Amino acid sequence: MTTSREIRLKSRPVGVPTADNFELASVELPPPGDGEIQVKNLYMSVDPYMRGRMTDRKSYVPPFELGKALQGGAVGEVTASNDPDFKVGDIVSSMFGWREAYNANPRALAAAGPMGGIMKLSTHGMPPQAFLGVAGMPGMTAYAGLLRVAALKEGDIVFVSAAAGAVGSVVCQIAKIKGHTVIGSAGGPEKVAFLKEIGVDHVIDYKATPDVTAELAKVAPKGIDVYFENVGGVHLEAALNAARPFGRFALCGMISQYNETGRPTGPANIIQAVGKSLRLEGFIVSNHYDLFPAFVRDMADWINSGKLTWKETVVEGVDRAPEAFIKLFSGENLGKMLVKL
Amino acid sequence: MTTSREIRLKSRPVGVPTADNFELASVELPPPGDGEIQVKNLYMSVDPYMRGRMTDRKSYVPPFELGKALQGGAVGEVTASNDPDFKVGDIVSSMFGWREAYNANPRALAAAGPMGGIMKLSTHGMPPQAFLGVAGMPGMTAYAGLLRVAALKEGDIVFVSAAAGAVGSVVCQIAKIKGHTVIGSAGGPEKVAFLKEIGVDHVIDYKATPDVTAELAKVAPKGIDVYFENVGGVHLEAALNAARPFGRFALCGMISQYNETGRPTGPANIIQAVGKSLRLEGFIVSNHYDLFPAFVRDMADWINSGKLTWKETVVEGVDRAPEAFIKLFSGENLGKMLVKL
Repeated sequence: MTTSREIRLKSRPVGVPTADNFELASVELPPPGDGEIQVKNLYMSVDPYMRGRMTDRKSYVPPFELGKALQGGAVGEVTASNDPDFKVGDIVSSMFGWREAYNANPRALAAAGPMGGIMKLSTHGMPPQAFLGVAGMPGMTAYAGLLRVAALKEGDIVFVSAAAGAVGSVVCQIAKIKGHTVIGSAGGPEKVAFLKEIGVDHVIDYKATPDVTAELAKVAPKGIDVYFENVGGVHLEAALNAARPFGRFALCGMISQYNETGRPTGPANIIQAVGKSLRLEGFIVSNHYDLFPAFVRDMADWINSGKLTWKETVVEGVDRAPEAFIKLFSGENLGKMLVKL
Repeated sequence: MTTSREIRLKSRPVGVPTADNFELASVELPPPGDGEIQVKNLYMSVDPYMRGRMTDRKSYVPPFELGKALQGGAVGEVTASNDPDFKVGDIVSSMFGWREAYNANPRALAAAGPMGGIMKLSTHGMPPQAFLGVAGMPGMTAYAGLLRVAALKEGDIVFVSAAAGAVGSVVCQIAKIKGHTVIGSAGGPEKVAFLKEIGVDHVIDYKATPDVTAELAKVAPKGIDVYFENVGGVHLEAALNAARPFGRFALCGMISQYNETGRPTGPANIIQAVGKSLRLEGFIVSNHYDLFPAFVRDMADWINSGKLTWKETVVEGVDRAPEAFIKLFSGENLGKMLVKL
């Protein structure tokens, strides 16, 4: 038997999640059964979107269940296998995060649908946790959102909020690789320095400025054509004000609103979308996995040629996963927030 | 000499326009010069979008100038002509509204660009003022917004705000002709009756319900796929709540916000655009005139076969044009608001 510690949802957060909403539990894993493999997780991901699943409401994914282990991206190593396609030592990614180890039947999962399965990773020399960030779901989100949803085209001036985050920092770099002027917003000197390091043309430190709209108007006097939305609130308003005719907004997330308990503040200037013929389009990365082969090809090329880099913020121990998750909402992570298990 | 009375912008409205913002003046028109025609206007249009041009701010059209005659759609009859393409008695449409008569040089105007010219109308038995409504800019707005911007497709459930207005009532009828379930929102029993008469499946009287979101959820329990936005505010929020995944919103206007002097209320639930992969797209009809031939063909067919009808609210006398315009914002018009000259 193998002991695996896991984090369960104890109560649904109201507002900003707290440690009390989570509980640590231990389970004993039997050896893997017929067709099963056993995996020891190396890293798990905490992502802002998980906040939505902690609330009991209808959404594009069902809510997490109380008293059960949470779910999310993880990379791990196969430690025992009864599936001929997997051998001990293989590195795999799965949605069985928030736990130290698990048994799973890869074929049964694959039969249930394309998402949520176990994927054997060819790491190409990259550290496995990169597949939770730049080479995984967040990187893919950046790629699909910028290139397909926002339909990036020559000459576009690009504005990115939460620009130093796991998704935002990839958006900035893809736009720079493709030759665009990029404006990124992030909070605090460390993130500002990182964004300058990766070539972002103008950085707005939203924690240091009282008025994102004024600051954006200053650094982008000609306006913006693409807005990659991760934050909501004043950032969305600033982008609407700065947008040029036919601007395109990829709405990826609005982290400033996830913990809102009252009535969130909507963009008071949404009317500008009419006069400027703007397109605001929300998206979920899982609807764009047809781009995955192109993403892998481009990303490998960009990483191997040194054009694209990333940062990680790592917290150690499954018991500290709630802490890592909670810190996402105060923006304490630079780049991808990970939990090392 | 011909005397023409006209309405000039005396001062820029703050909030809801008042009679004081306008002044009536008289000008003496000489006989038309070389290449010019003289037109006596029969009807002029007042449209909500004109409110935007009364404010001094950058937009897709320049603001109206103080002390000068306002502009807008008008249909009139040629009374004198020095242009061989126009003869006395021809019915023409122009942007020389807000005045009883004018001289203009059709060729010079045509050379200046496709919009703002003088167009000779083949009325096909329709009253000339139809070309200010169902067969003109508002009809074209409905056509382009519903079919191209919202990309109406089979099975879509369609929600239309200001559904009894010049644009909304055409949107409703095109959607019905194409076999869709249509929900229309309008204020007051007369408009509700008209919408039922033209086959709208469910009518929401927003003046009689305290909660448009709740009402929409009741009449569209399966949700909506297309929202044709004319109003903003609570209507936009209701549509975001009711939208099904991949819903498309054609943002045509937000009349509830045009006279706002404080901070308008943005849609507090805009975050739903992310999880439901919604597309919100603003548009200006002048960018879609490549559809004009198809519009004319379809509209003639629908009108001649009795499938599409319209209502007009007519005020008489150029001196009462400001009154007609102001009434748009309290929703006193059923269908197209016109001024008979």
